[in-house]
Amino acid sequence: MSPGRSRRMIGVDEIDDICLGAAILGTGGGGDPYIGGLVAKRAIRLKGAVEMLDVGDVPVDDLVVTCGNLGAPTVYIEKLVGESQPVDALRALEHHLGRKVNAVMAFEAGGSNSAIPIWVAAATGLPLVDADGQGRAFPELQMVTFGVYGVSACPMAMADEHGGTVVLNVDENWRAERIARAITVEMGARASIAAYPMTGAQLRKVAIAGTMGLSWSLGRRVRIAREQSTDVFATILEAFTGTGYNGARILFEGKVADVRRETRGGWAVGEVRIAEPAGNADDLVVTFQNENLLARSGSQVRAIVPDLICILDSDQGLPITTERLRFGLRVTVIVIGAPDIMRTPEALAVFGPLAFGLDTEFVPQEDLA
Amino acid sequence: MSPGRSRRMIGVDEIDDICLGAAILGTGGGGDPYIGGLVAKRAIRLKGAVEMLDVGDVPVDDLVVTCGNLGAPTVYIEKLVGESQPVDALRALEHHLGRKVNAVMAFEAGGSNSAIPIWVAAATGLPLVDADGQGRAFPELQMVTFGVYGVSACPMAMADEHGGTVVLNVDENWRAERIARAITVEMGARASIAAYPMTGAQLRKVAIAGTMGLSWSLGRRVRIAREQSTDVFATILEAFTGTGYNGARILFEGKVADVRRETRGGWAVGEVRIAEPAGNADDLVVTFQNENLLARSGSQVRAIVPDLICILDSDQGLPITTERLRFGLRVTVIVIGAPDIMRTPEALAVFGPLAFGLDTEFVPQEDLA
Repeated sequence: MSPGRSRRMIGVDEIDDICLGAAILGTGGGGDPYIGGLVAKRAIRLKGAVEMLDVGDVPVDDLVVTCGNLGAPTVYIEKLVGESQPVDALRALEHHLGRKVNAVMAFEAGGSNSAIPIWVAAATGLPLVDADGQGRAFPELQMVTFGVYGVSACPMAMADEHGGTVVLNVDENWRAERIARAITVEMGARASIAAYPMTGAQLRKVAIAGTMGLSWSLGRRVRIAREQSTDVFATILEAFTGTGYNGARILFEGKVADVRRETRGGWAVGEVRIAEPAGNADDLVVTFQNENLLARSGSQVRAIVPDLICILDSDQGLPITTERLRFGLRVTVIVIGAPDIMRTPEALAVFGPLAFGLDTEFVPQEDLA
Repeated sequence: MSPGRSRRMIGVDEIDDICLGAAILGTGGGGDPYIGGLVAKRAIRLKGAVEMLDVGDVPVDDLVVTCGNLGAPTVYIEKLVGESQPVDALRALEHHLGRKVNAVMAFEAGGSNSAIPIWVAAATGLPLVDADGQGRAFPELQMVTFGVYGVSACPMAMADEHGGTVVLNVDENWRAERIARAITVEMGARASIAAYPMTGAQLRKVAIAGTMGLSWSLGRRVRIAREQSTDVFATILEAFTGTGYNGARILFEGKVADVRRETRGGWAVGEVRIAEPAGNADDLVVTFQNENLLARSGSQVRAIVPDLICILDSDQGLPITTERLRFGLRVTVIVIGAPDIMRTPEALAVFGPLAFGLDTEFVPQEDLA
């Protein structure tokens, strides 16, 4: 830790704010913030608060591992994670590596996948790194800046709810994704993973720094705005000022007219149609694969991955995950420009539109405004 | 090795006999003997002959591991195993266990899965144990006497053709099978495994002893009978005299009238209809899932798993694997009574008719004659 700066501790009271903020960044995916928060709070009550480290405070030779869950969020509503599942994954990876892990980190920002590493940190006494590899949520394991900038997903460990573990050691991250996804389906569409082991030196080059802290401040601002009945959406947009993200604005307000969704290959896949009540504008159609990927009005692209498309309820500003979308909800859609590290050609090759089978070039949200 | 007995060495010249005999025991599965033999011979040419140990000659504290391939034999015809694939699986398991393996063994008898452990033994310099866990071939990983009598399939390692490995550690063998099968499909329906690690002491209790040696003698007898133009089928039936198997007899002779087969979930699944040319008997219908499971004439059961139903070509007595069955082949079907260790209630619960979804009780072939 840098001298003269106070330690940042995550206790039970911080969890709801973090999960709420992370769920906004989660762009419809990354799991439900309520369920994610429950497990993190329980672990902190049992084991104590978690220290959050800045990327620069992690010693260069320390070993950092990312934790989270794979699977369809539609299943997560029905089936909680097993008591020791994410810790089992971490221990299996340590056994394989033959050394202890020094700190844990989220691989994505999302209501549940931001909470899992906090849970693991509390349960194991390890610190949590204030960073992730997506600055949002993405549906596939290779879609992280870690991989884009040279860190392998493997060795990677997975754990099921029965205490079973699997350790993968395959060369290419997309291959690890395919094998891990097949295992996830067999594990009941809900597996915990410990992946992307990296040194503190690597961490500095490949992670998106500050995203856990941003989730925390974003959630806190939304909570306070709601308590004080000030404008929640203005508050959310302001929270991105001075961060690495490229702007934020309101894209659309309307009512959910139609949701098509299915659980396929371990993902929640589909699209939602949002109608403007006054009928003065074309409907907005948002396509998703766990996360929101593309917003269109007719044939016009309004926002596209990796920029963040967030669907919030118009009343409270709460994020709505794709598995919770339903007919009649009044929603406000905001778009947030992804950080520069996510918009390079190398990054777009891994999680740009084409990586999702979308036949549309990436255009920054600033140019579509 | 017991004193006064000569060492049994498997060289290049022995491979064809062993693979042929094993393919007869393979009851239509266990892979093609020609392809299995190729890889074993290549390894022996490069590294030298393999010593075969009796079960009783393995020190009680030594570590024995079974080797073989998972996947659809239909794929095996098109895609050979990667150069180091089965050895990669063994090494990954050793890494996980933190100790060296002392001997390898087949988990099933079959044209290819009897050859893989010979290949691994040659490539690593380890001895091969004269035993297996099925005394035949079966389509699923938990269907072995090892598991029936208390040895876990895990920790178990799998390897793909790209050098990738996966280590599984799950409690129940049927769960290991399901996860391993999903991984196999993702690995292109062809994975090498190293599984069922056991001590020499466990080996004595759970293995079916002598099956590799039986394959060898069976193959040699068939070859000699063909060279000398004596009755191949009489020779095959005689080979089971004095073994632990419960008799052998000819069940049917005819011509393949129809084959329905598909590659599903990593298996070759279907049925073959065999007609008696003179039309004096009902057709024989044999159902298979990689291996032959049930032979019926109309509604009458003629032979049923775990007894061995072997389809051989009538001309040469060569076994025909399920993926090679085709219209017009003249075939002779023989049935061999499984050893007693495979007919106990515990064993039938794991690989009896019900385990394959067959709504028919097991009846020993002796009682159906």
